[in-house]
Amino acid sequence: MTKRKIVLAFSGGLDTSYALVDFREKGWDVVTANIDTGGLHSGEAEAVKARAEELGAVEHHVVDARAELYDRVVTYAIKANYLRNGAYPSCVGAERLIQAEKVVEVALRVGADAVAHGSTGAGADHVRYDAVIRALAPHLEIITPVRDERLVREEEAEFLRSRGFAVSEKVKKYSINEGLIGTSIGGEETYGSWEYLPEDAWTYTKSIADAPAEGVELHLTFDKGVVTSAVVDGEPLVAADAPNYAILSELNVLGGEHGVGRGIHMGSTMVGNLARVGFEAPGMLILIAAHRELEKLVLSNRQQATKAQLGNTYGDLLHEAVYFDPIMDDFRAFLDSSQTRVTGTVRVKLHKGNIVLLGSSSPHSLLDAATRAGIVYGHGSSAWTGEQARAFAHMYAMPGSIARLAATPAE
Amino acid sequence: MTKRKIVLAFSGGLDTSYALVDFREKGWDVVTANIDTGGLHSGEAEAVKARAEELGAVEHHVVDARAELYDRVVTYAIKANYLRNGAYPSCVGAERLIQAEKVVEVALRVGADAVAHGSTGAGADHVRYDAVIRALAPHLEIITPVRDERLVREEEAEFLRSRGFAVSEKVKKYSINEGLIGTSIGGEETYGSWEYLPEDAWTYTKSIADAPAEGVELHLTFDKGVVTSAVVDGEPLVAADAPNYAILSELNVLGGEHGVGRGIHMGSTMVGNLARVGFEAPGMLILIAAHRELEKLVLSNRQQATKAQLGNTYGDLLHEAVYFDPIMDDFRAFLDSSQTRVTGTVRVKLHKGNIVLLGSSSPHSLLDAATRAGIVYGHGSSAWTGEQARAFAHMYAMPGSIARLAATPAE
Amino acid sequence: MTKRKIVLAFSGGLDTSYALVDFREKGWDVVTANIDTGGLHSGEAEAVKARAEELGAVEHHVVDARAELYDRVVTYAIKANYLRNGAYPSCVGAERLIQAEKVVEVALRVGADAVAHGSTGAGADHVRYDAVIRALAPHLEIITPVRDERLVREEEAEFLRSRGFAVSEKVKKYSINEGLIGTSIGGEETYGSWEYLPEDAWTYTKSIADAPAEGVELHLTFDKGVVTSAVVDGEPLVAADAPNYAILSELNVLGGEHGVGRGIHMGSTMVGNLARVGFEAPGMLILIAAHRELEKLVLSNRQQATKAQLGNTYGDLLHEAVYFDPIMDDFRAFLDSSQTRVTGTVRVKLHKGNIVLLGSSSPHSLLDAATRAGIVYGHGSSAWTGEQARAFAHMYAMPGSIARLAATPAE
Amino acid sequence: MTKRKIVLAFSGGLDTSYALVDFREKGWDVVTANIDTGGLHSGEAEAVKARAEELGAVEHHVVDARAELYDRVVTYAIKANYLRNGAYPSCVGAERLIQAEKVVEVALRVGADAVAHGSTGAGADHVRYDAVIRALAPHLEIITPVRDERLVREEEAEFLRSRGFAVSEKVKKYSINEGLIGTSIGGEETYGSWEYLPEDAWTYTKSIADAPAEGVELHLTFDKGVVTSAVVDGEPLVAADAPNYAILSELNVLGGEHGVGRGIHMGSTMVGNLARVGFEAPGMLILIAAHRELEKLVLSNRQQATKAQLGNTYGDLLHEAVYFDPIMDDFRAFLDSSQTRVTGTVRVKLHKGNIVLLGSSSPHSLLDAATRAGIVYGHGSSAWTGEQARAFAHMYAMPGSIARLAATPAE
Repeated sequence: MTKRKIVLAFSGGLDTSYALVDFREKGWDVVTANIDTGGLHSGEAEAVKARAEELGAVEHHVVDARAELYDRVVTYAIKANYLRNGAYPSCVGAERLIQAEKVVEVALRVGADAVAHGSTGAGADHVRYDAVIRALAPHLEIITPVRDERLVREEEAEFLRSRGFAVSEKVKKYSINEGLIGTSIGGEETYGSWEYLPEDAWTYTKSIADAPAEGVELHLTFDKGVVTSAVVDGEPLVAADAPNYAILSELNVLGGEHGVGRGIHMGSTMVGNLARVGFEAPGMLILIAAHRELEKLVLSNRQQATKAQLGNTYGDLLHEAVYFDPIMDDFRAFLDSSQTRVTGTVRVKLHKGNIVLLGSSSPHSLLDAATRAGIVYGHGSSAWTGEQARAFAHMYAMPGSIARLAATPAE
Repeated sequence: MTKRKIVLAFSGGLDTSYALVDFREKGWDVVTANIDTGGLHSGEAEAVKARAEELGAVEHHVVDARAELYDRVVTYAIKANYLRNGAYPSCVGAERLIQAEKVVEVALRVGADAVAHGSTGAGADHVRYDAVIRALAPHLEIITPVRDERLVREEEAEFLRSRGFAVSEKVKKYSINEGLIGTSIGGEETYGSWEYLPEDAWTYTKSIADAPAEGVELHLTFDKGVVTSAVVDGEPLVAADAPNYAILSELNVLGGEHGVGRGIHMGSTMVGNLARVGFEAPGMLILIAAHRELEKLVLSNRQQATKAQLGNTYGDLLHEAVYFDPIMDDFRAFLDSSQTRVTGTVRVKLHKGNIVLLGSSSPHSLLDAATRAGIVYGHGSSAWTGEQARAFAHMYAMPGSIARLAATPAE
Repeated sequence: MTKRKIVLAFSGGLDTSYALVDFREKGWDVVTANIDTGGLHSGEAEAVKARAEELGAVEHHVVDARAELYDRVVTYAIKANYLRNGAYPSCVGAERLIQAEKVVEVALRVGADAVAHGSTGAGADHVRYDAVIRALAPHLEIITPVRDERLVREEEAEFLRSRGFAVSEKVKKYSINEGLIGTSIGGEETYGSWEYLPEDAWTYTKSIADAPAEGVELHLTFDKGVVTSAVVDGEPLVAADAPNYAILSELNVLGGEHGVGRGIHMGSTMVGNLARVGFEAPGMLILIAAHRELEKLVLSNRQQATKAQLGNTYGDLLHEAVYFDPIMDDFRAFLDSSQTRVTGTVRVKLHKGNIVLLGSSSPHSLLDAATRAGIVYGHGSSAWTGEQARAFAHMYAMPGSIARLAATPAE
Repeated sequence: MTKRKIVLAFSGGLDTSYALVDFREKGWDVVTANIDTGGLHSGEAEAVKARAEELGAVEHHVVDARAELYDRVVTYAIKANYLRNGAYPSCVGAERLIQAEKVVEVALRVGADAVAHGSTGAGADHVRYDAVIRALAPHLEIITPVRDERLVREEEAEFLRSRGFAVSEKVKKYSINEGLIGTSIGGEETYGSWEYLPEDAWTYTKSIADAPAEGVELHLTFDKGVVTSAVVDGEPLVAADAPNYAILSELNVLGGEHGVGRGIHMGSTMVGNLARVGFEAPGMLILIAAHRELEKLVLSNRQQATKAQLGNTYGDLLHEAVYFDPIMDDFRAFLDSSQTRVTGTVRVKLHKGNIVLLGSSSPHSLLDAATRAGIVYGHGSSAWTGEQARAFAHMYAMPGSIARLAATPAE
């Protein structure tokens, strides 16, 4: 008789190690899938693979999802200038959706009967995973031991040791999640609202105090809203043939060096409770700030205001795993259209935690177009006369005057 | 025969000095009005008064509009977290509206036949002035020599000298406008989009480099969205009986000392051209950042998202002089209602240009309420079981699953 | 030992009759609560009471919730001009929330340990009930036999007959829900999307064909957005001391007589599936149409557009049981403020299914105010000259001209 | 010496007849352009041409703009379900923009130095004309005698008669504007807000009383939001090779026959005064009602709500001649994307002024997709258990419960 097959999203951590062995003992063929969304350090992929094999996985898949995460999620987050609650480059949520997709792809490829993930039921990640799996492959059973059985870490460790597997004794003070978009950091200070994370909780960004006294000037060039080059002191930040996400990755490093990118996010989850978590995301913060500055130069006021609103809704829905509502395609169509003229270069200075927007230029500059129309800003205008200006003010005041008259009924 | 009477918004500058003498020669009794919205340095009010009398004003009125500007404009800008184009605490526009109101009040009080202001027709200020005057006192004639006659500064100076009045030779490199809300700075660099203002263009804020190596921690307390106390190192920033705008004024000083508050605003005006202008506004940026952080602790996601949208529209309309549309009252009613729970304290650190939000607390904290409901964030939840979480994910995924099925018609 | 006490929302129907006896047998003291939100015909309240006593309720409470439903739900639905999906005066949803509140009030009054309602788990009503109960009285257990046990009608009938209680043999072809706001009608034709309800499915409205050949003219007067009088042929529709909901009730009758008020609603529920249901709601449709017409006379364009959007969101959230989000208070504050000038009279003709808006008048009429400002509509304007009109057009065209220039970069 | 050349938008009416002769006498070569946007009855084009030649035009151009008006304006109005102020299929405004474009095209083709139109300065049409001309051909002079000189009809007639040209004595009681989208009717009753237009003011629609006792059933089929067929009693309403606007034209006739399509629009213009005008537009009202019904079957709630808002803004901006703001392209991109699934057929009954939506079907039906997902509406669901429904309600109630707890601070 063929054994039933399950694909397990596997990180090598305690929860998914426990799950792997438990599934095996319950008679499953376990296929492990390790999805790289930017959180794997050098050598880690191999260590995860070795652990999977040690624990008895029948197959181990490594999927590099970074280019796809960048192309399908990051570029739209930047086009939308999306920051959750105005501050947070929504790191973890978006990564979960892509991870879930990739796990489903593996499951379909190996003909699995079920998929498993190690999410708890306390946060939003389990909802993201399930939303993707149910929509893409409703025939797959979903098994989530940590959520369903509310396992305790000590019990999991004991279970593994009793089967002869080594388990690390280290208890991390902070729960860290790394990825291309950013790193999130949770710990005792973030469970309440009053305390700030201490210096040793941050993983790679420098503090404002430790950042260099001199800042660095950066030129970022965008083509239809997508960053295409980053130049520091005349030198390109990444090689011409670097992968699409390389500028973001390098800006994480450069920004972090200058104390840029730290923050604490506080916002409600889709299950209604407030979450607070630290983050480091210099690259996204720099790219969004620069992109937005360029938009000010080339987009109409109405475009900027409507984009701000729709882009915020788009990002919130993605964060909340509303991934398959067709409205998401409509939002992307709007965002793509809005970027037609978002081509040009932005001068940015990174200095002691600040992202200073020095200036910008574009072939579609509204400042230049107004000059061509005869409006020389700061030097008066030949596009209209004083009499025309006066008449405009007269007419512009009309609705307000009428509204005020209407407030007091005529006798 | 009684002479006709005109009230002139008078700053003591070249344009309005010229206008005063010109009106007098044309047979008007000229009443000058100097409206203080925070831009008058010590001794300036007296100098302006002396100049008005020297030039022949029949009466001179000084109106301190700071408390009213704060109460009617600033508090709502903070409740709305309004920053024009996401960056600029719209300094000049809002001040003009209050100034125009006060000029109209003087005109009604002295029984004037006309009002005059020195706005050019190039920008938006003349539209703001006229919108207010026409709505509040449609019977008053509006006379605007600079707009209508497109006067050149040299001609104005020559005119005044020929009547025996001294005129300063100084030509300022930057056009500076100071007020309670902020200072705006225009000059050669801001007429294009590529250059940043040089160090000597800024008026009172320190550069990031010159700001102290050590930051300062500030506790700001809000009551229903209005700041009521500011404490630095245990010491209140302002005296208990200080005027309502004192915390804002003092934060301008304190923030400026730490390199906080500089920026360059770029955005379209209501006449369609793009404007770019430097600004210094530490106090508003600090208050809005802190206020918004407190809102994250106490408002629902929907409140925050709707507020962001309505608040932005409210601020834009105010900036664009849509002052008498009754929608403005409706927006304020919404904003006031939304602040019912925005009571609490925010910890802010000012450091080398950064406004770091350290933490916050409130009797209406959603984090505390969730704890009372059994959701202990970061430590799992006793408010729902794993099975309930699983069922929620199952149901939450339903609409996406159906939408995806609908994408592909059944055979 | 004291028996535990449960309050059961009781309609006298099969589901709740079964529940009453079942609870009793399981050892509960059952208190029945019959909440009247406009669906009780003459004599029905007594019949429900008698049935409750027959089946063994220890207490029976009748709560007339019509005035409160009108005051807290209907007036805001009209202020918001809310129609679900642009068509449906959301009948059932709003009533459930008020019913749940009243059941909780009874439960608190009698010191109950639990509440029960007869909702199935298929639709949205059970979510509405639970949302209200959990927020208002989290200590109360919620028991929902129909939802939890998926009971079949035949089994319930058999259970009751076996205990000696008569059960009607009648099987209704349509599932009807009556209330002050409207009547909903579900049946075979509404389960798909292609068929229309047949003539005999409708409960009290006339068909277009059967409506009188002559229509009737109605004058509806509003005070700050709330209807205060309805006059037909010079005769008031309701007595001066009639309850607040009397005009709505009488308009249901009058409109139905003229073929007004039928429709089929189709829209997604909060659990993601599409629902389709017939409805009869002449009164709400007439009041909203008239109210909206009056708003066109007195509100600014911006007020109308913003109200349409916020009002729609408000109504949708209420329909979706997002009842305790504080945003709902903020929406009501906005709506109340917007109604300051919505005072006046609307002429409406009901004729063969049509609600024809003949005309309107208001002391805050913008048409009259414009006349006072010198704009005589249809006869040219003395509020501006041809030259001013021309200058306005010149300036108004500016942003479009600049945007077009910016589309094509200068060589 | 070559004479300067002017292109005059020419309707054959008194204003433009006067202008033609006046321009000629002032030394212009006058080229007349008659743009057909659906308002020309049989034989009228020839009469206009003859009049132009009689009055001395050097060239006369007839441009049939109906197909382009339909393709570029009407289809998007339907995709957006746009009705100005929720009622008016904005007839005149959109036509003016297309007319202005066509006049500019003629002017560029004949190498004109100027364009002229006969708009008054009282309404919004002159702003629409100028906005288009200035953006598309800023080098062209704009000459508008009626606006600038405030001519009186009697003076114009006398001027023409003195040159030997016949002028009709007829004074029309109503100002009528006909077009593909609809007919507008202004007159004494519409200048105030209280009166309704009398029966003889309407041009081609039947009254409710005069409409046939029997209605007619119509099947309208849409493909990605665009109507592709209309079938009445099994017979196609238009031939297969009919122009794109034929269904709209024929629905105007058919709807008018059944008393459908009359209304009175009341709304603020872009110059701030309230306008009131009658209209007949059966075709647009039928198509939008049917299209919207189909959208309810296939679009998500979020799509419908966002479309309603954006579509309304899109239509308002078009009405207000904000034609060249790039946001308009972005809105169209959103609308096009949203129509991907709007394919199917709607059953509509036209009866005594009513548009009754009987039913609809689509391969992308969400009702059918839910059935495939196991949710059999009206018959319970196999897509979730009672326990899952209960858990969903439990979780769904969480945010409201927390918000309510937060309202009352803990002691």
